[in-house]
Amino acid sequence: MTIELSERQEHILTIVKEEGPITGEQIADKLSLTRATLRPDLAILTMAGFLDARPRVGYYFTGKTGSQLLTEKIKQLKVKDHQSLPVVVKESSSVYDAICSMFLEDVGTLFVVDSHGKLVGILSRKDLLRASIGKQELESIPVSIIMTRAPNLTVCEKDDYIIEAASKLIEFQIDALPVVKSKDSAGFEVVGRLTKTNITKLLVEIANDEHE
Amino acid sequence: MTIELSERQEHILTIVKEEGPITGEQIADKLSLTRATLRPDLAILTMAGFLDARPRVGYYFTGKTGSQLLTEKIKQLKVKDHQSLPVVVKESSSVYDAICSMFLEDVGTLFVVDSHGKLVGILSRKDLLRASIGKQELESIPVSIIMTRAPNLTVCEKDDYIIEAASKLIEFQIDALPVVKSKDSAGFEVVGRLTKTNITKLLVEIANDEHE
Repeated sequence: MTIELSERQEHILTIVKEEGPITGEQIADKLSLTRATLRPDLAILTMAGFLDARPRVGYYFTGKTGSQLLTEKIKQLKVKDHQSLPVVVKESSSVYDAICSMFLEDVGTLFVVDSHGKLVGILSRKDLLRASIGKQELESIPVSIIMTRAPNLTVCEKDDYIIEAASKLIEFQIDALPVVKSKDSAGFEVVGRLTKTNITKLLVEIANDEHE
Repeated sequence: MTIELSERQEHILTIVKEEGPITGEQIADKLSLTRATLRPDLAILTMAGFLDARPRVGYYFTGKTGSQLLTEKIKQLKVKDHQSLPVVVKESSSVYDAICSMFLEDVGTLFVVDSHGKLVGILSRKDLLRASIGKQELESIPVSIIMTRAPNLTVCEKDDYIIEAASKLIEFQIDALPVVKSKDSAGFEVVGRLTKTNITKLLVEIANDEHE
């Protein structure tokens, strides 16, 4: 719910920011208005989260701007509610097989697992493209040669905030993160895939007001 | 700016939704409250955009929910404020050269132009990967053979809404859109590139309250 602040409400915010805690009476005095005239404005500013009030102390500024309050909703979204299914290949697979999996499953990133299902690497379209312009036969190169290898993997967990995961996608310039959970032994099991496509869908859903 | 509605405000909304247009007096009667008691609530609901009022008619429901109002800000963002620079190759370039450009410029999508700079095709990493596992020499295949070709191109313009562009990325399952403008002659000139990375950055910026 967005609301436009009136000039008087902006003025009240400035006063409280500079001089809070301050009582309603004192604010009214500064504006040469009655306490009753100010009441709706103070109610709005308090309900909106800009101001807070303590009995016998007065109003103080919460430190939150309008946009901060507006975006808190987005900040609470979790990875688990927006992830896709992961597509995995074995570390013994050939680069050729991996490329086929990528086309067959229509994904941009494959996760590589060992014989126990533990995550050992990640393959991007870029990794496969780089390998494919080399001179070797793609059937004879195992993916373990060209993959990005544990422990140099950027991962997320299902209860991570989506904004945290999106920031990793940007910071590490990657298209997808494996969503992992710790296995009994050391290492991670892959339980999902979070991509820039998931994030793009999310923004469209937010704008169309379809998300929970 | 987000605000929590009180139970009384929710009640007022329900009444106006069902019976509006309705005067403040009538709402007060229904709630067995005085008009004065209701004034701050009606002010809040009106300023927040839930209700509107016409003189001598009364209050009516605007049809906007809280989340709709909250997301109107996102809906107003334009492509031009979030696009990247385009990377183009000539239609006579070889697939090998295109792959090199893709790595050199570190982009996932190339735009193909004719000798007049007119957009004639688009190359994705997937297109190049598909070509590279074929049996032909990559140096000898021109990109015009493997590119997605005009008029089957999905494009956007700099004044398009970002949500409209993001929806195209999802609907057509592509990683990037060329941002185009019409040339004097028929056809488009490429002036930018809008990618899922741009959209992911935008969501992070919105959450961190860094966007305009």
